[in-house]
Amino acid sequence: MTVSPFDHPLLSGLLGDEEAARHFSVEADIEAMLGFERALAEAEAECGIIPCDAGAAILKALATFRPDTAKLRAGVGRDGVVVPELVRQVRVAVGEPHGEFVHFGATSQDIIDTSLVLRLRQVIDHIGLLLGENVVRLTGLELEFGERQFMAMTRMQPAIPITVTNRTASWRAPLERHQQRLAEISGGLLALQFGGAAGTLEKLGDKAAAVRAALAAKLGLADAPQWHSQRDALAEFASWLSLVTGSLGKFGQDVALMALTGSDIKLSGGGGSSAMPHKQNPVKAEALVALARFNAVQLSGMHQALVHEQERSGAAWMLEWLILPQMVVATAAALRLAAELTAQIESVGH
Amino acid sequence: MTVSPFDHPLLSGLLGDEEAARHFSVEADIEAMLGFERALAEAEAECGIIPCDAGAAILKALATFRPDTAKLRAGVGRDGVVVPELVRQVRVAVGEPHGEFVHFGATSQDIIDTSLVLRLRQVIDHIGLLLGENVVRLTGLELEFGERQFMAMTRMQPAIPITVTNRTASWRAPLERHQQRLAEISGGLLALQFGGAAGTLEKLGDKAAAVRAALAAKLGLADAPQWHSQRDALAEFASWLSLVTGSLGKFGQDVALMALTGSDIKLSGGGGSSAMPHKQNPVKAEALVALARFNAVQLSGMHQALVHEQERSGAAWMLEWLILPQMVVATAAALRLAAELTAQIESVGH
Amino acid sequence: MTVSPFDHPLLSGLLGDEEAARHFSVEADIEAMLGFERALAEAEAECGIIPCDAGAAILKALATFRPDTAKLRAGVGRDGVVVPELVRQVRVAVGEPHGEFVHFGATSQDIIDTSLVLRLRQVIDHIGLLLGENVVRLTGLELEFGERQFMAMTRMQPAIPITVTNRTASWRAPLERHQQRLAEISGGLLALQFGGAAGTLEKLGDKAAAVRAALAAKLGLADAPQWHSQRDALAEFASWLSLVTGSLGKFGQDVALMALTGSDIKLSGGGGSSAMPHKQNPVKAEALVALARFNAVQLSGMHQALVHEQERSGAAWMLEWLILPQMVVATAAALRLAAELTAQIESVGH
Amino acid sequence: MTVSPFDHPLLSGLLGDEEAARHFSVEADIEAMLGFERALAEAEAECGIIPCDAGAAILKALATFRPDTAKLRAGVGRDGVVVPELVRQVRVAVGEPHGEFVHFGATSQDIIDTSLVLRLRQVIDHIGLLLGENVVRLTGLELEFGERQFMAMTRMQPAIPITVTNRTASWRAPLERHQQRLAEISGGLLALQFGGAAGTLEKLGDKAAAVRAALAAKLGLADAPQWHSQRDALAEFASWLSLVTGSLGKFGQDVALMALTGSDIKLSGGGGSSAMPHKQNPVKAEALVALARFNAVQLSGMHQALVHEQERSGAAWMLEWLILPQMVVATAAALRLAAELTAQIESVGH
Repeated sequence: MTVSPFDHPLLSGLLGDEEAARHFSVEADIEAMLGFERALAEAEAECGIIPCDAGAAILKALATFRPDTAKLRAGVGRDGVVVPELVRQVRVAVGEPHGEFVHFGATSQDIIDTSLVLRLRQVIDHIGLLLGENVVRLTGLELEFGERQFMAMTRMQPAIPITVTNRTASWRAPLERHQQRLAEISGGLLALQFGGAAGTLEKLGDKAAAVRAALAAKLGLADAPQWHSQRDALAEFASWLSLVTGSLGKFGQDVALMALTGSDIKLSGGGGSSAMPHKQNPVKAEALVALARFNAVQLSGMHQALVHEQERSGAAWMLEWLILPQMVVATAAALRLAAELTAQIESVGH
Repeated sequence: MTVSPFDHPLLSGLLGDEEAARHFSVEADIEAMLGFERALAEAEAECGIIPCDAGAAILKALATFRPDTAKLRAGVGRDGVVVPELVRQVRVAVGEPHGEFVHFGATSQDIIDTSLVLRLRQVIDHIGLLLGENVVRLTGLELEFGERQFMAMTRMQPAIPITVTNRTASWRAPLERHQQRLAEISGGLLALQFGGAAGTLEKLGDKAAAVRAALAAKLGLADAPQWHSQRDALAEFASWLSLVTGSLGKFGQDVALMALTGSDIKLSGGGGSSAMPHKQNPVKAEALVALARFNAVQLSGMHQALVHEQERSGAAWMLEWLILPQMVVATAAALRLAAELTAQIESVGH
Repeated sequence: MTVSPFDHPLLSGLLGDEEAARHFSVEADIEAMLGFERALAEAEAECGIIPCDAGAAILKALATFRPDTAKLRAGVGRDGVVVPELVRQVRVAVGEPHGEFVHFGATSQDIIDTSLVLRLRQVIDHIGLLLGENVVRLTGLELEFGERQFMAMTRMQPAIPITVTNRTASWRAPLERHQQRLAEISGGLLALQFGGAAGTLEKLGDKAAAVRAALAAKLGLADAPQWHSQRDALAEFASWLSLVTGSLGKFGQDVALMALTGSDIKLSGGGGSSAMPHKQNPVKAEALVALARFNAVQLSGMHQALVHEQERSGAAWMLEWLILPQMVVATAAALRLAAELTAQIESVGH
Repeated sequence: MTVSPFDHPLLSGLLGDEEAARHFSVEADIEAMLGFERALAEAEAECGIIPCDAGAAILKALATFRPDTAKLRAGVGRDGVVVPELVRQVRVAVGEPHGEFVHFGATSQDIIDTSLVLRLRQVIDHIGLLLGENVVRLTGLELEFGERQFMAMTRMQPAIPITVTNRTASWRAPLERHQQRLAEISGGLLALQFGGAAGTLEKLGDKAAAVRAALAAKLGLADAPQWHSQRDALAEFASWLSLVTGSLGKFGQDVALMALTGSDIKLSGGGGSSAMPHKQNPVKAEALVALARFNAVQLSGMHQALVHEQERSGAAWMLEWLILPQMVVATAAALRLAAELTAQIESVGH
């Protein structure tokens, strides 16, 4: 099945990003979830919540555990989340008498949300690199052509001459601000989710804080109170993603308009047509506009999901699953395309 | 890569629909595109636009043609559409001297849009069946429990007693209207797109109308003037999809609220929890709400894509690709889940 | 207060439409609501639900009733709807012993939803006329310039020459389809809402159907079962509004691009600049794009409101109030602007 | 005209906020625009760009200037912006020979965007106070009832008992984070826009930087390079607004659900019904959900407007006008309602 172009064997060649998408594969998700269970067992054994033998047995079993994915799929269909079935399989793998200590005091949302955050950490590294690359390439463009001129266009009409830098700065400066913003929001985003059944870690008694701190440290995440029904960090990150694609969409739109009106820009490459061999379509520029509008649409859904009722909303949570990974991949794809597009600019201005 | 839950090996067990998703696979798309080329060659040979020998050679080659998908993927990355590379491969397969007659007078958008419509025709059959099944099941529910009573809830407060039918009618009646609406909009949607480079079929001369009519007939689609930059039928269909999921979202929300407040409904099954074995979560009801909100979000993007500039907008077109297939699968999944949820209702009312 | 440009004394000169906005004034709303109460009293008196004397007294009082709007405003703040306070004032105006028969068997939603529908009926007439005017003007444009030519643009690149009609048809044909669609959906939209406290008209006993039919006839609306929690007709109408503005947005975008690239179009008028007296900005064309994107955004909210829980959702209902009137006025404004823009086209093509 | 509930004489009693709306009145906008022209004349006179006499004459004329709003409205209809006509009127008021120095070197967007920012500064103060008041009231709620208990609800099903604080923290903690976020983003938002015709301040020569710095200082805004086509700070602010209303929507949804299921919460007040005098509808809670969903919808449009082509996009700019003021007022209204709703909570938990 290939419903989304981000997953599509052909279309992802244009609209996707393999590195970003990789972090949303089943394999990556399960690996991160098992990493959570491993770290949890370690932390709980160290804090005396579960027996040391149990901790050791869980680690040993996890080292070679391979899930039965057909049963996991059926489990999702039944339970709405993969975790009950996954935990059941891990418990079987651990066996008696230690199996019952797997996932002790945790709940499905802990493992799923933390798995997401672990993978977002890697995604952020990837996106951050792509963002930096774009800043570098646009700076290079300015160094090479910045003092040339062309006609500014306001309200789609010729205005007065400006330098190339006057426009390229409007492509580059927002990206630099997005770098700064990413640094500011990452801390709040990359936080452990660990609350147990209803957020109180009630099974861990007075060791709850210690276990949570140890778990966060092992996973390399910030230690923070559970946020299972407070989704503002995710919505804020989604907003950031859409800011990035929006800025790149402006870049793409500008390039397409420059290509349309003629001599202000010279692009190498460009897409071929099945009907008109003479054409050089500004495909990457168009894709930037499409991805910007796509993320702007999706962002609405991530903010709808802020209305996350009570201690856990299945509906709002699933809405995030349907949207956030695609926004991430759209952003990575847009950054990749923008860097490629900048490299295609052979000259700009006169 | 499994960025979208609709493509996800595990999550699609809940949120996906295999039958609907199948029509958006690469295989289905290519099969439909090759079907277009086959019918085009036939129609053009019959109308004398291409030599009969060429037509026969194309049909023969297509009967065994297998595309090189790695090259198709690269082609999409380069051209923004798969068609130039696909046509190149088919021409190679046909060989000299007939290869040049492949895709004669057509352009990428003709084959891509028509492939979409051909697959939407099958999707509509599938969704129509699911819709009918839901009406039948809800009618059954009314027959069994309709005269029982429970307390109506207005503005989330108890109002006065109503019969079960008073509420189930609010689930069923919209679906019946959606059946009627689907019948009304299908005609406009299931129309051939065939215009050539810029919509004028300029290479077909005075036989353009005849070829187009023959092509439409062979493909079982309505014959209509090219609509390559008029996307209202697609946006209208997307609106219809969101009407369906919206109505099912109301059903899901109602069931979840009835399950929350206790004794008005009795559900079999229900999702298990990894932390609280006593729980029976109304997972399918929640999923209906999530899918309704998802499609309501996406719909905005399909309407943004109506601003399809000039004779062909790469940006607006790609935005459709990113959204419409997911809306279709979300709708099929919601219909499937709703039918299952209705079957889980063991009793309702008192 | 002038938060919305549609209400703004200055900005509505461009983005608003007085005739459409008039139907959303307080005065129009109250007049329609009082018209409902009047017709209800008549229908209930005729059917023997309320005493004839009471009916006469209500009609007499309504003939001169003027509400205390300060108290209505306070009532909305308290009750979330204007109706309890409005009914209280009308009952005082009717006085003893007949006051209690005002609003008999009805509820707030009956009067508010029906008032909306009564005003949408007038709006639809207005929009229908504007739509027709646009079709006429675009047809005139085709008659005058249709056989001229210019270069088609696909993917923002020159393609091959086409006639003017090839493009203007892509502006006109969707509008003609929208006329047809409006005819199809109006019937379902212009239906009385009348259900009483929870949709059962429980206070009217076996005369409920007769009263409802009489009420619908007096108001000139279709008689239909209550639809208080089934909002599909409204969401469908919103979709239609966005289809219209989307098609006009394509027209606006095309004109702006033609004006940008030079000689394909010649526009009279055009907006002046405070910095560059030489400029002629295609203001109306830009506004069409803005209004198209605005409605595409809003549409998402009208579909979110389909998740209208139980017998009456205050939250989903208020969301409609926040959105639908603006979509209507945006559509009327876009149609007005499009007609004006067409009139500004002095020539097109070569 | 009262198309938007935020402007509606009755509905704004519930859904509006007078103080926030006041900043979007024509009067406030014109006052801020004239403040820009005043400060510009002062700065340019001080820097020797315009004659001192001209500066003095402009200040004198502005002190008593009253615009002809009918002509301003016509100007917007013609030019798409109010500025050309406003500047014309001011020049007439200043008279010969100094009138030509009004608005010297500036363009419409400078004055309109800066007027917006000047008013957002006041809006932010207002919203910041409301936000603080909500944190205080929720903290008070915790102090009074925090150690009581009720049953946690996960996935709309009873889970395990939690304390009241466990839930109220999920209402309060996001608001505290939003306070921190507001502090972080305000700096970037409250920046002067001043670029002249195409962003280069070409008429000011080598004094451009000095004039801009002086102008910023006089207006109390940050001095920054022109951002006329870089709208990320506005989109980021819109995201923040939607984060706030989203968090309040969760609060409202929780309260409505608690009121639905009975004894966990006791509210004073509550809305009356025209049909059922016994009801106490949680109107403010519902309004919070509606406003959250409204802003989540609107946010999409503010991010669509990031695709702001070339040096000035009329279409993208107008889209902001249609959306941002409403998001601001929706947020202020939600904060006011949330504070009132907290005050209505007589007890929570057991």
